[in-house]
Amino acid sequence: MKINVLTLFPDMFTPLQTSMLGRGLEDKKWNLNLVNFRDFTTDVHHHVDDTPYGGGAGMVLQIMPIKKALNSLSSTGKIIITAPQGKTFNEKMAQEWAKEDELTFICGHYEGFDQRVYDLADETVSIGDYVLTGGELPTMSMIDATVRLIPGILGNAASPVEESFSHGLLEYPQYTRPADYEGQKVPDVLMSGNHQKIDEWRHYQALKATYLHRPDMLEGRKFTSEEKKMLAQIKAELD
Amino acid sequence: MKINVLTLFPDMFTPLQTSMLGRGLEDKKWNLNLVNFRDFTTDVHHHVDDTPYGGGAGMVLQIMPIKKALNSLSSTGKIIITAPQGKTFNEKMAQEWAKEDELTFICGHYEGFDQRVYDLADETVSIGDYVLTGGELPTMSMIDATVRLIPGILGNAASPVEESFSHGLLEYPQYTRPADYEGQKVPDVLMSGNHQKIDEWRHYQALKATYLHRPDMLEGRKFTSEEKKMLAQIKAELD
Repeated sequence: MKINVLTLFPDMFTPLQTSMLGRGLEDKKWNLNLVNFRDFTTDVHHHVDDTPYGGGAGMVLQIMPIKKALNSLSSTGKIIITAPQGKTFNEKMAQEWAKEDELTFICGHYEGFDQRVYDLADETVSIGDYVLTGGELPTMSMIDATVRLIPGILGNAASPVEESFSHGLLEYPQYTRPADYEGQKVPDVLMSGNHQKIDEWRHYQALKATYLHRPDMLEGRKFTSEEKKMLAQIKAELD
Repeated sequence: MKINVLTLFPDMFTPLQTSMLGRGLEDKKWNLNLVNFRDFTTDVHHHVDDTPYGGGAGMVLQIMPIKKALNSLSSTGKIIITAPQGKTFNEKMAQEWAKEDELTFICGHYEGFDQRVYDLADETVSIGDYVLTGGELPTMSMIDATVRLIPGILGNAASPVEESFSHGLLEYPQYTRPADYEGQKVPDVLMSGNHQKIDEWRHYQALKATYLHRPDMLEGRKFTSEEKKMLAQIKAELD
């Protein structure tokens, strides 16, 4: 997969060049093309922004340098831009994007784009109900969530399938050495060696965490008869 | 404000040392203390993880190095950890955190923490319904959203108050030069010089964008009589 990013801050992208994603780049499992759209300005001061028509505080990023930067690419694939009016980013989107050959992200800065830039995008995505100084961090999060699903990126690490959101429940609690840390002990069942009991305990804990913290994730779920029994037990336990 | 971050990848944090947040660091408007908890391991291979009790794929980050790293800090303020079972991060949380003197974030990696690490946190926060290879990117997003609200960080840029989520509506479309880009024109009203008309147009567009894309943001809103008229007009327009 090839990923193009239009940004004013290509130096910010070290997180994608570190750890597993960085190894994936070295192994050519994916490709990151950082394009500084300031290089496509034509004025002597290399301005990328100007005051808004109609007045108001702040500056607005102009369409021209961004359009020229896009035109400089031989292909773009889907063009993605972050904006509060977009659909909120989620794992399903990452799974869809992971199937693409190429994606292009446009990163704004605190100022916001000329509306005609938003019109260039195939998908407008919101990262959540909060404001950041720029589009770089949300873009990196979206790229990370997408690229980690490409086969071979996670290597011997846990397969993406075993995680929260993938099977519709929050994860069960995990424990590792030491068995007793300053009096905080690992639950006995996990040391029992009884794998059926361990699986049941984990299933119960995952369902309980989801019921407690993210009941919305259970809406529309088809519960197995085993899960129905567990749910009754969870409700009794919490009463 | 002082922010401590416990991470295995301190080199990833360049985005917070760039642009406006970076200038804020130079001007000592805030302080970033990156702590590699691998430095607190006691074994010769500096392992921070181990296999999960009860079996299963993957590794689990151990409590010991993280607890020792926390103990090495003279103070921590609120301890924050990202996990899918947490409350979803939003602007309101950023506003609360921006009032604190000190915050400490713990970044996991793809593996997840021993449950006893989660128990150390004062707040467990989810960044959204997607999976990342590590906690560094969501932590940086939360820090960015928080630190930009500290007075003096945004400098002469638009004040945070004028933005989406702050006044409960999505932003209205903005335009800047050129007035005509390859046939795509700026709306006439913005060039009219009539500031009352411009304000009305912007208010209408903000309400329309919110009604179309984020109707949930309008729930419980106390509409002015002007907004009620606008809403009726928007509904008629979209019919």
